[in-house]
Amino acid sequence: MSAAKADLLRALRAKLRTSMPITEALGLRVMDRDGTGVVLGAPLAPNLNHKGTAFAGSLNAAATLAGWGTIWLLLREHGVRSHVVIQDSSVHYFRPVRGDFTARCKGPSATAVERLVNAVQKKGRGRLALDVMIADEGGDAVKFHGRYVALGEE
Amino acid sequence: MSAAKADLLRALRAKLRTSMPITEALGLRVMDRDGTGVVLGAPLAPNLNHKGTAFAGSLNAAATLAGWGTIWLLLREHGVRSHVVIQDSSVHYFRPVRGDFTARCKGPSATAVERLVNAVQKKGRGRLALDVMIADEGGDAVKFHGRYVALGEE
Repeated sequence: MSAAKADLLRALRAKLRTSMPITEALGLRVMDRDGTGVVLGAPLAPNLNHKGTAFAGSLNAAATLAGWGTIWLLLREHGVRSHVVIQDSSVHYFRPVRGDFTARCKGPSATAVERLVNAVQKKGRGRLALDVMIADEGGDAVKFHGRYVALGEE
Repeated sequence: MSAAKADLLRALRAKLRTSMPITEALGLRVMDRDGTGVVLGAPLAPNLNHKGTAFAGSLNAAATLAGWGTIWLLLREHGVRSHVVIQDSSVHYFRPVRGDFTARCKGPSATAVERLVNAVQKKGRGRLALDVMIADEGGDAVKFHGRYVALGEE
């Protein structure tokens, strides 16, 4: 891992730890960056539901944050300090998650990132849609699509 | 509150406490039943995000469980013991949640409930779509739509 990448992951870890206390209860941790997409991981134990699999709300929280972290890091890399909020999302739980899991955000296209950065710099507000896949050892289990807005100064 | 209603709310509280440990970290509690729709409440503090408002993932978890609890109680009232899982959902965060919040599930129509119960009893599987609204003191803030499946024996 390059020093720049390690620095970015450290910055995101610090941001989540200080700004979003619930991530600790969920056991969410920043694992990697795959291209420009953030990969979060979480253990099953604190997120169990009534069926002994992962609670949908925990899975949604992990996916929401994988997307949020992806935009937050992309803006940082482009020297933009902006708030990022989610506007809406949809999720399909197509298979139970039976063990520890990852939430892997697909890195957006260079064009979409450029459009986002330009919009924030020129109009103080930009949008980005992201896809996140959640998987356990058995493979993909949850598909998430979220639309985020970056606005103002962080 | 009638004794029957109090019993149902107590049963749901026990179910969440024993089966979904993360509800404690989220501070989620079963507050009421409005018609047949479950009303959950949660404090802002454990669910804070980077902007000092409620984390979208926590809001989604609250909405997911308000819908889940609504179906779970409806099936219980009809003498059906079935697993309930969420299949997919969509959510629109149209305003930040700035304080303690409630997740209020709209009670489904009698026809939809009858169809669900019949399907579970005859085919071992039934579906129900539910709408949940999240609000803080300032009014409505998040709109959620979830599709649930009841299947098998609990």
